[in-house]
Amino acid sequence: MNVITISREFGSGGRELGKRLAEELGYAYYDSEIITEIAKETNLSEEYISSAVESGWSGFSFHYGRSFHPQFNKIAVDVLTAQTNVLKRLASKGNCVIVGRSAAAILDDLNPLKIFVCADVEYKIQRCRLKNPADAELSDAEMIRNFKRIDNGRKRLHEQLSNTEWGTSKAYHICVNTSGFEIKTIVPSLAQFAKTWFETR
Amino acid sequence: MNVITISREFGSGGRELGKRLAEELGYAYYDSEIITEIAKETNLSEEYISSAVESGWSGFSFHYGRSFHPQFNKIAVDVLTAQTNVLKRLASKGNCVIVGRSAAAILDDLNPLKIFVCADVEYKIQRCRLKNPADAELSDAEMIRNFKRIDNGRKRLHEQLSNTEWGTSKAYHICVNTSGFEIKTIVPSLAQFAKTWFETR
Repeated sequence: MNVITISREFGSGGRELGKRLAEELGYAYYDSEIITEIAKETNLSEEYISSAVESGWSGFSFHYGRSFHPQFNKIAVDVLTAQTNVLKRLASKGNCVIVGRSAAAILDDLNPLKIFVCADVEYKIQRCRLKNPADAELSDAEMIRNFKRIDNGRKRLHEQLSNTEWGTSKAYHICVNTSGFEIKTIVPSLAQFAKTWFETR
Repeated sequence: MNVITISREFGSGGRELGKRLAEELGYAYYDSEIITEIAKETNLSEEYISSAVESGWSGFSFHYGRSFHPQFNKIAVDVLTAQTNVLKRLASKGNCVIVGRSAAAILDDLNPLKIFVCADVEYKIQRCRLKNPADAELSDAEMIRNFKRIDNGRKRLHEQLSNTEWGTSKAYHICVNTSGFEIKTIVPSLAQFAKTWFETR
């Protein structure tokens, strides 16, 4: 099974890149269905799962038993267990691209092709304003605060699940900075890279 | 002018990747001639320049005037000035690939395509033993010490010349981890990436 994981900075276009790459390669693409499946397994709402998992539990805090745990209480552990089950089940179905959801760390044993997508902050602001009408209301400073909060959560979660450092070149097979060009233009070369990588690994 | 800079961890195969990429694209490839040219401009020996520049001045210390400067004394500044002149002269000649020599930082104004090449330590040890008969005599621990010394020098020099962090995905346009496969297999996809990047930047 060829599994490609896309880890990404918020606003860098990683989701679009993953979707286009899956199309180009004829692979399945898994995104929001992962959240739906985790919600089914845990009986929690999709909104809750989505916002917790997407932000690496940033801003979430819980009471578990009599102690206060800022992170990784029973709910988080249940979600993470369901997340692992769902990701492994999807990956076993056939060649696929999985965006986010700590798939690079959780599916490490399957030796996936790990891609990281980043971009300069000016580009991410521009991209978010274009894609999300709601973001158009935010100031640059508010958007940058959002980027930092979400990416710090992703980084923290990645580093709790893996012994590699989120966003450093060493933790992935290929990292791409999408600043300043249309994502669709680079997809054919990444697809070619992926094909070669799976043939020769 | 299309300029590609290859920054790399010691032992990751960045030089081979640069050479093959230049061949694939029909670009000039600059490597040891940079050292020869710096030596000519500064009247210092090629051996001295090579070992200082390659290691980011790691292990070099100087007396300059009456003060002791661990780094960046007059000699280092003279070499860096010559290095800048040589890199700009070569880059102005036509499309090219430049390996190392802080070209990513020094030629930043030319908006080069910046590639970073890294690899896992086991792969780098294996690669160095294969390529350098002298390295076959060294223990793993000695080789790892060498990698760290040289890469720390490169990192320090890059960060003195640039406001980006050496080896992080954000500081480059594309980063490739060469662990576990033959470099020649990934060159066509990187060449395609480069062509698209120069067409659309």
